[in-house]
Amino acid sequence: MQFLSDNAAAVHPRVWDAMRAADAADRPYDGDALSQRLDEAFGALFGREVAVMWVATGTAANCLALATMVPPHGGVVCHREAHVEMDEGGAPGFYLHGAKLLLADGEGAKLTPESVAAVLGAIRDDVHQVQPHALTLTQASEYGLSYRPAELAALVALARERGLMVHMDGARFANAAAFLGQSAAETCGDVDALSFGCVKNGGMSAEAVVFFAPELAAVARYRRKRAGHLQSKGRFLAAQLLAMIEGDLWLENARAANAAAAEIAHAAPGRLLQPVEANEVFLTLDEAERDALRAQGFGFYDWGPGAARFVAGWDTRQDDARALARAVAAL
Amino acid sequence: MQFLSDNAAAVHPRVWDAMRAADAADRPYDGDALSQRLDEAFGALFGREVAVMWVATGTAANCLALATMVPPHGGVVCHREAHVEMDEGGAPGFYLHGAKLLLADGEGAKLTPESVAAVLGAIRDDVHQVQPHALTLTQASEYGLSYRPAELAALVALARERGLMVHMDGARFANAAAFLGQSAAETCGDVDALSFGCVKNGGMSAEAVVFFAPELAAVARYRRKRAGHLQSKGRFLAAQLLAMIEGDLWLENARAANAAAAEIAHAAPGRLLQPVEANEVFLTLDEAERDALRAQGFGFYDWGPGAARFVAGWDTRQDDARALARAVAAL
Amino acid sequence: MQFLSDNAAAVHPRVWDAMRAADAADRPYDGDALSQRLDEAFGALFGREVAVMWVATGTAANCLALATMVPPHGGVVCHREAHVEMDEGGAPGFYLHGAKLLLADGEGAKLTPESVAAVLGAIRDDVHQVQPHALTLTQASEYGLSYRPAELAALVALARERGLMVHMDGARFANAAAFLGQSAAETCGDVDALSFGCVKNGGMSAEAVVFFAPELAAVARYRRKRAGHLQSKGRFLAAQLLAMIEGDLWLENARAANAAAAEIAHAAPGRLLQPVEANEVFLTLDEAERDALRAQGFGFYDWGPGAARFVAGWDTRQDDARALARAVAAL
Amino acid sequence: MQFLSDNAAAVHPRVWDAMRAADAADRPYDGDALSQRLDEAFGALFGREVAVMWVATGTAANCLALATMVPPHGGVVCHREAHVEMDEGGAPGFYLHGAKLLLADGEGAKLTPESVAAVLGAIRDDVHQVQPHALTLTQASEYGLSYRPAELAALVALARERGLMVHMDGARFANAAAFLGQSAAETCGDVDALSFGCVKNGGMSAEAVVFFAPELAAVARYRRKRAGHLQSKGRFLAAQLLAMIEGDLWLENARAANAAAAEIAHAAPGRLLQPVEANEVFLTLDEAERDALRAQGFGFYDWGPGAARFVAGWDTRQDDARALARAVAAL
Repeated sequence: MQFLSDNAAAVHPRVWDAMRAADAADRPYDGDALSQRLDEAFGALFGREVAVMWVATGTAANCLALATMVPPHGGVVCHREAHVEMDEGGAPGFYLHGAKLLLADGEGAKLTPESVAAVLGAIRDDVHQVQPHALTLTQASEYGLSYRPAELAALVALARERGLMVHMDGARFANAAAFLGQSAAETCGDVDALSFGCVKNGGMSAEAVVFFAPELAAVARYRRKRAGHLQSKGRFLAAQLLAMIEGDLWLENARAANAAAAEIAHAAPGRLLQPVEANEVFLTLDEAERDALRAQGFGFYDWGPGAARFVAGWDTRQDDARALARAVAAL
Repeated sequence: MQFLSDNAAAVHPRVWDAMRAADAADRPYDGDALSQRLDEAFGALFGREVAVMWVATGTAANCLALATMVPPHGGVVCHREAHVEMDEGGAPGFYLHGAKLLLADGEGAKLTPESVAAVLGAIRDDVHQVQPHALTLTQASEYGLSYRPAELAALVALARERGLMVHMDGARFANAAAFLGQSAAETCGDVDALSFGCVKNGGMSAEAVVFFAPELAAVARYRRKRAGHLQSKGRFLAAQLLAMIEGDLWLENARAANAAAAEIAHAAPGRLLQPVEANEVFLTLDEAERDALRAQGFGFYDWGPGAARFVAGWDTRQDDARALARAVAAL
Repeated sequence: MQFLSDNAAAVHPRVWDAMRAADAADRPYDGDALSQRLDEAFGALFGREVAVMWVATGTAANCLALATMVPPHGGVVCHREAHVEMDEGGAPGFYLHGAKLLLADGEGAKLTPESVAAVLGAIRDDVHQVQPHALTLTQASEYGLSYRPAELAALVALARERGLMVHMDGARFANAAAFLGQSAAETCGDVDALSFGCVKNGGMSAEAVVFFAPELAAVARYRRKRAGHLQSKGRFLAAQLLAMIEGDLWLENARAANAAAAEIAHAAPGRLLQPVEANEVFLTLDEAERDALRAQGFGFYDWGPGAARFVAGWDTRQDDARALARAVAAL
Repeated sequence: MQFLSDNAAAVHPRVWDAMRAADAADRPYDGDALSQRLDEAFGALFGREVAVMWVATGTAANCLALATMVPPHGGVVCHREAHVEMDEGGAPGFYLHGAKLLLADGEGAKLTPESVAAVLGAIRDDVHQVQPHALTLTQASEYGLSYRPAELAALVALARERGLMVHMDGARFANAAAFLGQSAAETCGDVDALSFGCVKNGGMSAEAVVFFAPELAAVARYRRKRAGHLQSKGRFLAAQLLAMIEGDLWLENARAANAAAAEIAHAAPGRLLQPVEANEVFLTLDEAERDALRAQGFGFYDWGPGAARFVAGWDTRQDDARALARAVAAL
């Protein structure tokens, strides 16, 4: 019973079906019929014109999006525990040619206007310090918290005021939308580009970069090729993305994962390090407790010395979640 | 009846089967059982110890390999018409941080010791000129020619003498091996790293970078993550690669493609721009002739004003190749 | 009697005087009074508004200028024998983050609309090939030829038509202006930025980047600091530049160097590889002839197997030039 | 009476003399006689074999040194308030191709084995996190504190144990040596490369990068050219460096600056934010006090809301320091 991560889950049957249906040769790269449908399909989902680009990983999605916003001599404000800072192996430094991540604080890996303003305010406006050009935030956050529309609006407003573009890392965007019970547009707010996650949510190898500022997409297409991310059989990535958003599979899968996480959370409200607003649960658990759970067959990561992280996937069985909930309650 | 390229062909059924068999969640990234088998499986294929890394595209494979050989201030000798120079959207400049491609001549996009030595000899050994650190060659070449073992040995010997590492772009490596009737090891020679193509040969989205110098692989793994090419469900890429080399599917598919190409070539020996030593056929065809073929339903690319390129894939039907051969002969 | 290069000549007394006069501490970097005068002084020289930035070398000047025009995924058209391609140790790859030099032909290292158009025409407008964003040309060229106004106008018109910005490498700009008997503005044409050389013309360690498009300068100032080229005692660089343009010292020095070169050229019209339109003389001279000249104490570089290059500096004594002229005539 | 910085002070007369003496043309770049003497002269100073390279700025010196130690996918441990992090306009990101600065704490901008170990210990040894390859520390620190030999030894030992190379930013190295009353070798410890400052200490435009690991220098020479820092009249930079170390001018100047700083410090021991161990003095001063000092003609920078920084240069007159001391004491 694995709660290690949602990042290696099985592929959803409807995604498999869509991929198989895409087998027949079509034009290479993103010239195929499916890739050509992405703008329209995502446009319908977000209720506005968008330009959409597939890539294989969230790291590539985030970095290609940011590379359109930030010159090599610029900086990006992000949370101190953001994925771009912590877990992308320095990919932003590579894709942005040495541009700098400017680290802000905030509870639960969420930025606030105050924490962002503190970072911005500390930067002298001269050539000796790296100037900010963009802001990136993660929805849901690295601690499984979801930004509310008003929070997004305040952050975006601050960014606009300072001339920053805004990117959203949506590796678990579906989980936030499902938790908030909101549309894609509301969950996203008025950002310039969104990394729309699919791999953690039942996909195999496709994420969407959704550009709300179409001129950015034109640049990103060159950058994608230049980064070796333009696959010749791109139709298989497009097929995954379309399968995910058609019939609201993205929400259906996210709801299942969120429900499993909620099941666990409800069993141990006193142990929660963070409210559970997506599919991740952080619990205070000492070493003996963690050992006890592992002895019962539960897999998960330690989170520092006195806590653990449990992640539910689209395919986490509700029975397994219930078993874990019971085991935690019984500690 | 398409002869445009092999790069968007269907996925081979055995590859599909292997991918489906890999569906169950395993450890993420390359910690899964299939990824862990790659070194051994490819080691058996090449008859020596190797370290193997999957990536999604040939561009990424080439550039990650070269990035382990060449510092940012260095250069790579390649053919003037090499894929890295012509068709990778500047990816070498990105991955190698501005290192320079040093362009050599040679018939049929094949390098020779003379053409490489000419490039090397023109470089002053001082800090004002970019110094060569590696050599990259393509097997089969961009014009569908295959290097013979003695040719490879001569190039590698020259490279060693000048202190250069050697990379082979094997986007169509299988076609060369099949044409030459040689083992993988013979087809490859004593290079330091090989981009072993799979996508053009019945795969979906996986190429192998085969490192014969294992210390390079250690660096390349960091670079792969940093480039956003470390997929979390990497097992699906490993599955493709294993399916391809197990039971010699790579050779079987390449032989089929080569046979189709040979069929076409035999129909028009007088029109051949290059000998056909893989799955590509370059024919002199004037505009009227090309129009006539297209009117009969054949798809292909023009190759300059007076010629055309025809590429056969693993799934090109022999009937279609025969039909094309007849049509060409009848012009 | 050295004719090796103008790049290591003595510093002109008026430049020394200006530097000494700048000794008293002033605001650091480019906040000092002299640096603040540059825009106005060069604006007067060029008869239009400009933004000027000092840097220590021509390589830095060229690359910082180009870095404002070309994104990392773009390309720059230059002559195959341009300094940026041949002799800057890969600096454009560094400063432009892997952007590509797109090499054009042309007699005497001069570009023509035809040779540039040939390069542009060969680039497919898709993401697989690096797209051009700028054009750079050298005035006087690497072979000492000067572009006439109509030639410049035709090149700039072509660049504009294709959406390219234009940079001029003016390491020997003064020599061109002096040869043509033209104003700075005429010698430069309607380019977007000029590397105005000073070191080869009696300066010590300062070149000016002159931006005719002021928005480029704003970016370049960040890039200069980021490249470690913002000296804290920048007043000493500004002093050199001001000394050079005030009282037309730049033209006076260039005329002296050109006159020495002309003296040599007139002695051997039949040996000239190129017309002499600046301060460089390329002569066909076999090995024995070169040995003979060296035995008489003349220093110069071989230029391939059957020729030699002679460069005159601002401080080349007319007597020395005459002696060389006689020696060549006597061969 | 300026105490703003030492970075724009006048040039020492002996430096001027050395530069004038270098006027006659010599071989370009670093082929001149003076540049060729650097290794020996600095070798004598440090009592061991070294390879020395001039550059124009401390930023270039630091970044070129680090670029020889850290691959693009690696990281450098530095203090959170180090000059490379705070005041180099992102130059490390540029020169190290996106390598990451890993920020450590420590009083007075000094690293400790504990603070460095804390940073190293928090990095997972996997490809998702940037791995450390080097450590850089500043002697004297950005707050004017000097590392003692035992402190250096402990840091270097830790670095070696973890496989890190070590760089020292010695923008004010002379001030540390003068304060500690130690030799250059003792002040430096067993680092791999040192940025030996000269500009802040009476030079005009030259810093020395001193490589104790000679194989690094070979790489750095290519990188220097590639960064546009190889000046053709390099003899003028070498002249400055030689003037500075010959006859111990570097120590003489640093002692003068330190004495002036000590004078100020002694006047207000209760106001010192940091001990004064070089030529910088940080004093708690409220706004009214700062205004009062400025009204008396003293120039200095605010240091946050309740403090100010005073820097003495080699040319700060002892009378001025005494006047400031009296004025502070009288507040």
